[in-house]
Amino acid sequence: MFREKIKVFDCTIRDGGLINNHDFEPRFVREVYKALSEAGVDYMEMGYKNSKKLFSPKEFGKWKFCDDDDIKKVIDGIESDVKLSIMVDVDRVDIDDVKPRKDSPVAMIRVASYVKDIDKAIFLVNHFADKGYETTVNIMAISRALDNELNEALHQLEEESKANVIYLVDSFGALYQESIEFLVKKFKSILKTKEVGIHAHNNQQLAFGNTIEAIIHDANFVDGTVYGLGRAAGNCPLELILGFLKNPKFDIRPILDLISNEFIPLQKKLEWGYIIPYAITGILDEHPKAAIALRSSDKKENYREFYESLLGEDLD
Amino acid sequence: MFREKIKVFDCTIRDGGLINNHDFEPRFVREVYKALSEAGVDYMEMGYKNSKKLFSPKEFGKWKFCDDDDIKKVIDGIESDVKLSIMVDVDRVDIDDVKPRKDSPVAMIRVASYVKDIDKAIFLVNHFADKGYETTVNIMAISRALDNELNEALHQLEEESKANVIYLVDSFGALYQESIEFLVKKFKSILKTKEVGIHAHNNQQLAFGNTIEAIIHDANFVDGTVYGLGRAAGNCPLELILGFLKNPKFDIRPILDLISNEFIPLQKKLEWGYIIPYAITGILDEHPKAAIALRSSDKKENYREFYESLLGEDLD
Repeated sequence: MFREKIKVFDCTIRDGGLINNHDFEPRFVREVYKALSEAGVDYMEMGYKNSKKLFSPKEFGKWKFCDDDDIKKVIDGIESDVKLSIMVDVDRVDIDDVKPRKDSPVAMIRVASYVKDIDKAIFLVNHFADKGYETTVNIMAISRALDNELNEALHQLEEESKANVIYLVDSFGALYQESIEFLVKKFKSILKTKEVGIHAHNNQQLAFGNTIEAIIHDANFVDGTVYGLGRAAGNCPLELILGFLKNPKFDIRPILDLISNEFIPLQKKLEWGYIIPYAITGILDEHPKAAIALRSSDKKENYREFYESLLGEDLD
Repeated sequence: MFREKIKVFDCTIRDGGLINNHDFEPRFVREVYKALSEAGVDYMEMGYKNSKKLFSPKEFGKWKFCDDDDIKKVIDGIESDVKLSIMVDVDRVDIDDVKPRKDSPVAMIRVASYVKDIDKAIFLVNHFADKGYETTVNIMAISRALDNELNEALHQLEEESKANVIYLVDSFGALYQESIEFLVKKFKSILKTKEVGIHAHNNQQLAFGNTIEAIIHDANFVDGTVYGLGRAAGNCPLELILGFLKNPKFDIRPILDLISNEFIPLQKKLEWGYIIPYAITGILDEHPKAAIALRSSDKKENYREFYESLLGEDLD
């Protein structure tokens, strides 16, 4: 697959930060930045921009706040064409913390939002666009979106927002490729002036396959993380995306070195990947939080009991 | 996805045997058989039927030979609708070792063949069909097949063979879903009187996605292994197939128990799964043998050097 418009977007530090309280050492973040730069990756997301009024820097690492100065330190002196991104959550950002684009090392701001919060997301994204940033809206938990509400949100995003890219986010790793095809086609049919992006989770080992499926149907922004690092089952492995894309500007070698030197040791400290409780929450289209709790308990390998416990939630 | 004709085919012991010289303890094989029976899986493959003139039972475990008596012992007393299968390789089977169907616990024989050996495969499959078995031909290394030779082989299989099912086998885990679609449609268009099967390898985490892709285009025999066990990167995880298929006859719970009780401990003894050197051989459409050798060496995590070594093979 060679389509020049495809942009590879790395969110290793941002999504990976969800399993270590965003507390990566600056040295590690610098190694990731260096490798992505050499590999020709288009974007790197450094973390979240959360308000320090809501979260204490004593409890969380630097990459939950992404101060410009911390970012500048890790990129200093490295030759790079990688554009930097930060993510903001609706209701968790203090917009006054965000300087104008010309005064910041950050090029892109991505706003993560549920369908129900789309008005807030549009306000934020337009604010950041007016400050000069490239912007995206990432619609989370898309596997749970009601079709009429999703349609309305997409029309609003097309007509009212200045976002450059609208992402579909399979937060629960629940979607099969038929639904990816359905959703990307829907996004493309409504979002005439925007690019479409895909952010897939790997609960059912479908993150890469679903990313390819989205590319086939014209999604041009594709998220990945090095060695699939990310919360719970993790994300689409960046190295597989680079192996698939035929654009000669990409080079997989620096990422292979990065995995050998940094991610194999990291795997001894953090848990992510294909683990049955995460597969179960994916199959059942559930948030992974119950599985994350299970993995910290002494019942971590009691898969049948865990499965039954999710089936047993009474609904009316 | 609910299509009653879809048959779920487990090859845990057969494909898993490739990483332990087919030396699973009878107790373990019995546990697998019991769980598959409770889960409603359609077929279970016990191993290979190799000639003892070519391979010594001193060097290999029982499941490289699959004597009827060994099979009978592990299934004895377990209520089951699972049909048993064995695999034979062209040029490695002594056909006189195979009793008539009515005298054997085995219901199906699968013949593994490269495109170039299709005449030998047809001879074998017709011989076993005449002995009363259900039969398949599994075309290996399909990612390397030349289109004209594959077309001719498929026409021969349709016209000259008594096989019930023809499988496409992505031996190297190299195919993306566009090629799966292309191949399954080709198989269906030529094999008017046969079912089509899919056997995927997981080098690029695409085994499950490619299996779904094949199902979408009307493949009705789908191979999986419990927890993806298999040589190198392993296979399509059976538990994900059961989570995807909506036929109420399937029950994932016994497989979850089996993974908890048998496969989590097994993972401490055998290596399989998403490991970068296997991803690299998948990306490059190569046999995994170089990666398997690497993983037994002291350079097991030297990914860049391994990648370069495969690129460096001069061809003319």
